[in-house]
Amino acid sequence: MGDNLFDAIDETIHAKARLGIMSLLAVHGQCDFKFLRDELQLTEGNLGNHIRVLEQAGYIDVQKTFVGRRPKTICSPTELGMNMFQQYIEGLERIIRMAQPPHRKS
Amino acid sequence: MGDNLFDAIDETIHAKARLGIMSLLAVHGQCDFKFLRDELQLTEGNLGNHIRVLEQAGYIDVQKTFVGRRPKTICSPTELGMNMFQQYIEGLERIIRMAQPPHRKS
Repeated sequence: MGDNLFDAIDETIHAKARLGIMSLLAVHGQCDFKFLRDELQLTEGNLGNHIRVLEQAGYIDVQKTFVGRRPKTICSPTELGMNMFQQYIEGLERIIRMAQPPHRKS
Repeated sequence: MGDNLFDAIDETIHAKARLGIMSLLAVHGQCDFKFLRDELQLTEGNLGNHIRVLEQAGYIDVQKTFVGRRPKTICSPTELGMNMFQQYIEGLERIIRMAQPPHRKS
Protein backbone atom coordinates (compact mmCIF):
# COMPACT_ATOMS: atom_id res chain seq x y z
CA MET A 1 0.00 0.00 0.00
CA GLY A 2 1.35 3.42 -0.95
CA ASP A 3 1.87 6.01 1.75
CA ASN A 4 -0.33 8.39 -0.21
CA LEU A 5 -3.53 6.36 -0.15
CA PHE A 6 -4.85 7.87 3.06
CA ASP A 7 -3.13 11.23 2.56
CA ALA A 8 -5.67 11.81 -0.22
CA ILE A 9 -8.43 11.85 2.39
CA ASP A 10 -9.02 15.57 2.90
CA GLU A 11 -10.14 15.98 6.53
CA THR A 12 -12.00 19.16 5.58
CA ILE A 13 -14.39 17.01 3.55
CA HIS A 14 -14.09 13.68 5.38
CA ALA A 15 -16.04 14.61 8.54
CA LYS A 16 -19.42 12.94 8.09
CA ALA A 17 -21.49 16.14 8.21
CA ARG A 18 -19.20 17.93 5.74
CA LEU A 19 -19.19 14.93 3.41
CA GLY A 20 -22.97 15.24 3.51
CA ILE A 21 -22.91 18.96 2.75
CA MET A 22 -20.45 18.61 -0.12
CA SER A 23 -22.35 15.63 -1.59
CA LEU A 24 -25.62 17.55 -1.55
CA LEU A 25 -23.96 20.59 -3.12
CA ALA A 26 -22.41 18.35 -5.79
CA VAL A 27 -25.85 17.00 -6.62
CA HIS A 28 -27.95 20.15 -6.32
CA GLY A 29 -25.45 22.87 -7.24
CA GLN A 30 -26.64 25.08 -4.40
CA CYS A 31 -28.61 24.44 -1.25
CA ASP A 32 -30.56 26.41 1.30
CA PHE A 33 -29.39 26.16 4.91
CA LYS A 34 -32.73 24.69 6.05
CA PHE A 35 -32.63 22.05 3.31
CA LEU A 36 -29.18 20.95 4.44
CA ARG A 37 -30.29 20.95 8.08
CA ASP A 38 -33.29 18.74 7.31
CA GLU A 39 -31.55 16.39 4.88
CA LEU A 40 -28.58 15.82 7.17
CA GLN A 41 -30.59 15.97 10.40
CA LEU A 42 -28.17 18.33 12.06
CA THR A 43 -28.87 21.06 14.58
CA GLU A 44 -28.54 24.58 13.21
CA GLY A 45 -25.52 25.23 15.44
CA ASN A 46 -23.75 22.10 14.31
CA LEU A 47 -24.53 22.71 10.63
CA GLY A 48 -23.40 26.33 10.99
CA ASN A 49 -20.04 25.20 12.38
CA HIS A 50 -19.45 22.78 9.50
CA ILE A 51 -20.48 25.36 6.92
CA ARG A 52 -17.99 27.80 8.45
CA VAL A 53 -15.18 25.24 8.13
CA LEU A 54 -16.01 24.70 4.45
CA GLU A 55 -16.35 28.43 3.80
CA GLN A 56 -13.03 29.22 5.49
CA ALA A 57 -11.34 26.53 3.40
CA GLY A 58 -12.72 28.25 0.30
CA TYR A 59 -14.77 25.17 -0.65
CA ILE A 60 -18.17 26.86 -0.53
CA ASP A 61 -19.68 30.33 -0.84
CA VAL A 62 -22.35 31.41 1.61
CA GLN A 63 -24.84 34.11 0.72
CA LYS A 64 -27.30 35.53 3.23
CA THR A 65 -30.41 37.15 1.87
CA PHE A 66 -33.95 37.85 2.99
CA VAL A 67 -37.17 36.45 1.58
CA GLY A 68 -39.66 38.94 2.94
CA ARG A 69 -38.59 39.26 6.54
CA ARG A 70 -37.15 35.77 6.70
CA PRO A 71 -33.41 35.32 6.47
CA LYS A 72 -32.28 32.80 3.90
CA THR A 73 -28.79 31.33 3.65
CA ILE A 74 -27.69 29.82 0.36
CA CYS A 75 -24.58 27.65 0.10
CA SER A 76 -22.93 26.89 -3.20
CA PRO A 77 -19.71 25.05 -4.00
CA THR A 78 -16.73 26.96 -5.36
CA GLU A 79 -14.64 25.63 -8.21
CA LEU A 80 -11.91 24.79 -5.67
CA GLY A 81 -14.49 22.98 -3.54
CA MET A 82 -15.76 20.87 -6.41
CA ASN A 83 -12.20 20.01 -7.46
CA MET A 84 -11.28 18.99 -3.91
CA PHE A 85 -14.49 16.98 -3.61
CA GLN A 86 -13.74 15.17 -6.86
CA GLN A 87 -10.22 14.36 -5.64
CA TYR A 88 -11.65 13.18 -2.34
CA ILE A 89 -14.11 10.85 -4.09
CA GLU A 90 -11.32 9.47 -6.29
CA GLY A 91 -9.25 8.86 -3.15
CA LEU A 92 -12.13 6.95 -1.57
CA GLU A 93 -12.53 4.89 -4.72
CA ARG A 94 -8.85 3.90 -4.54
CA ILE A 95 -9.22 2.86 -0.90
CA ILE A 96 -12.36 0.88 -1.71
CA ARG A 97 -10.60 -0.95 -4.56
CA MET A 98 -7.65 -1.75 -2.31
CA ALA A 99 -9.70 -2.84 0.68
CA GLN A 100 -12.40 -4.79 -1.08
CA PRO A 101 -12.14 -8.45 -0.04
CA PRO A 102 -11.62 -10.53 -3.18
CA HIS A 103 -14.32 -13.05 -2.15
CA ARG A 104 -16.94 -10.34 -1.72
CA LYS A 105 -20.45 -11.28 -2.76
CA SER A 106 -21.78 -8.93 -5.43
CA MET B 1 -31.69 11.70 -1.13
CA GLY B 2 -32.74 9.21 1.53
CA ASP B 3 -32.23 10.05 5.16
CA ASN B 4 -30.33 6.81 5.56
CA LEU B 5 -27.51 7.55 3.13
CA PHE B 6 -25.25 9.16 5.71
CA ASP B 7 -26.55 7.12 8.63
CA ALA B 8 -24.73 4.18 7.03
CA ILE B 9 -21.43 5.93 7.72
CA ASP B 10 -20.24 4.21 10.89
CA GLU B 11 -18.21 6.80 12.82
CA THR B 12 -16.22 4.02 14.49
CA ILE B 13 -14.72 3.23 11.08
CA HIS B 14 -15.01 6.62 9.36
CA ALA B 15 -12.22 8.42 11.28
CA LYS B 16 -9.32 8.53 8.83
CA ALA B 17 -6.88 6.57 11.00
CA ARG B 18 -9.44 3.86 11.77
CA LEU B 19 -10.44 3.62 8.11
CA GLY B 20 -6.73 3.03 7.48
CA ILE B 21 -6.48 0.33 10.16
CA MET B 22 -9.62 -1.49 9.00
CA SER B 23 -8.54 -1.28 5.33
CA LEU B 24 -5.14 -2.77 6.11
CA LEU B 25 -6.72 -5.52 8.21
CA ALA B 26 -9.18 -6.26 5.38
CA VAL B 27 -6.26 -6.65 2.98
CA HIS B 28 -3.75 -8.46 5.22
CA GLY B 29 -6.01 -10.36 7.60
CA GLN B 30 -3.87 -9.44 10.58
CA CYS B 31 -1.28 -6.77 11.18
CA ASP B 32 1.48 -6.05 13.64
CA PHE B 33 1.23 -2.78 15.59
CA LYS B 34 4.51 -1.49 14.15
CA PHE B 35 3.39 -2.27 10.60
CA LEU B 36 0.22 -0.24 11.12
CA ARG B 37 2.19 2.59 12.72
CA ASP B 38 4.59 2.77 9.76
CA GLU B 39 2.00 2.35 7.00
CA LEU B 40 -0.35 4.92 8.47
CA GLN B 41 2.40 7.22 9.74
CA LEU B 42 0.81 7.60 13.15
CA THR B 43 2.46 8.06 16.51
CA GLU B 44 2.26 5.02 18.78
CA GLY B 45 0.01 6.88 21.21
CA ASN B 46 -2.38 7.94 18.49
CA LEU B 47 -2.46 4.49 16.90
CA GLY B 48 -2.98 2.93 20.34
CA ASN B 49 -6.01 5.15 20.95
CA HIS B 50 -7.61 4.22 17.63
CA ILE B 51 -6.92 0.52 18.17
CA ARG B 52 -8.60 0.75 21.56
CA VAL B 53 -11.72 2.29 20.00
CA LEU B 54 -11.93 -0.52 17.45
CA GLU B 55 -11.25 -3.19 20.09
CA GLN B 56 -13.91 -1.78 22.44
CA ALA B 57 -16.42 -1.78 19.57
CA GLY B 58 -15.63 -5.46 19.04
CA TYR B 59 -14.32 -4.80 15.52
CA ILE B 60 -10.79 -6.10 16.12
CA ASP B 61 -8.97 -8.50 18.43
CA VAL B 62 -5.66 -7.45 19.93
CA GLN B 63 -3.12 -10.02 21.09
CA LYS B 64 0.04 -9.07 22.91
CA THR B 65 2.91 -11.55 22.78
CA PHE B 66 6.68 -11.50 23.07
CA VAL B 67 9.21 -12.32 20.39
CA GLY B 68 12.28 -12.94 22.53
CA ARG B 69 12.17 -10.01 24.91
CA ARG B 70 10.40 -7.74 22.50
CA PRO B 71 6.68 -7.14 22.91
CA LYS B 72 4.63 -7.71 19.80
CA THR B 73 1.02 -6.62 19.33
CA ILE B 74 -1.06 -8.31 16.67
CA CYS B 75 -4.39 -6.90 15.51
CA SER B 76 -6.89 -8.96 13.60
CA PRO B 77 -10.42 -8.14 12.47
CA THR B 78 -13.37 -9.91 14.08
CA GLU B 79 -16.27 -11.24 12.04
CA LEU B 80 -18.36 -8.31 13.32
CA GLY B 81 -15.60 -5.91 12.31
CA MET B 82 -15.39 -7.28 8.78
CA ASN B 83 -19.18 -7.17 8.41
CA MET B 84 -19.31 -3.58 9.63
CA PHE B 85 -16.43 -2.64 7.34
CA GLN B 86 -18.20 -4.20 4.37
CA GLN B 87 -21.38 -2.27 5.21
CA TYR B 88 -19.34 0.91 5.58
CA ILE B 89 -17.74 0.42 2.15
CA GLU B 90 -21.13 -0.24 0.59
CA GLY B 91 -22.43 2.95 2.22
CA LEU B 92 -19.52 4.91 0.74
CA GLU B 93 -20.21 3.42 -2.67
CA ARG B 94 -23.83 4.61 -2.48
CA ILE B 95 -22.70 8.13 -1.56
CA ILE B 96 -20.16 8.15 -4.39
CA ARG B 97 -22.81 7.04 -6.90
CA MET B 98 -25.19 9.73 -5.66
CA ALA B 99 -22.61 12.51 -5.55
CA GLN B 100 -20.74 11.78 -8.75
CA PRO B 101 -21.18 14.67 -11.15
CA PRO B 102 -22.73 13.30 -14.36
CA HIS B 103 -20.19 15.11 -16.55
CA ARG B 104 -17.24 13.61 -14.70
CA LYS B 105 -14.24 12.78 -16.84
CA SER B 106 -13.35 9.10 -16.60
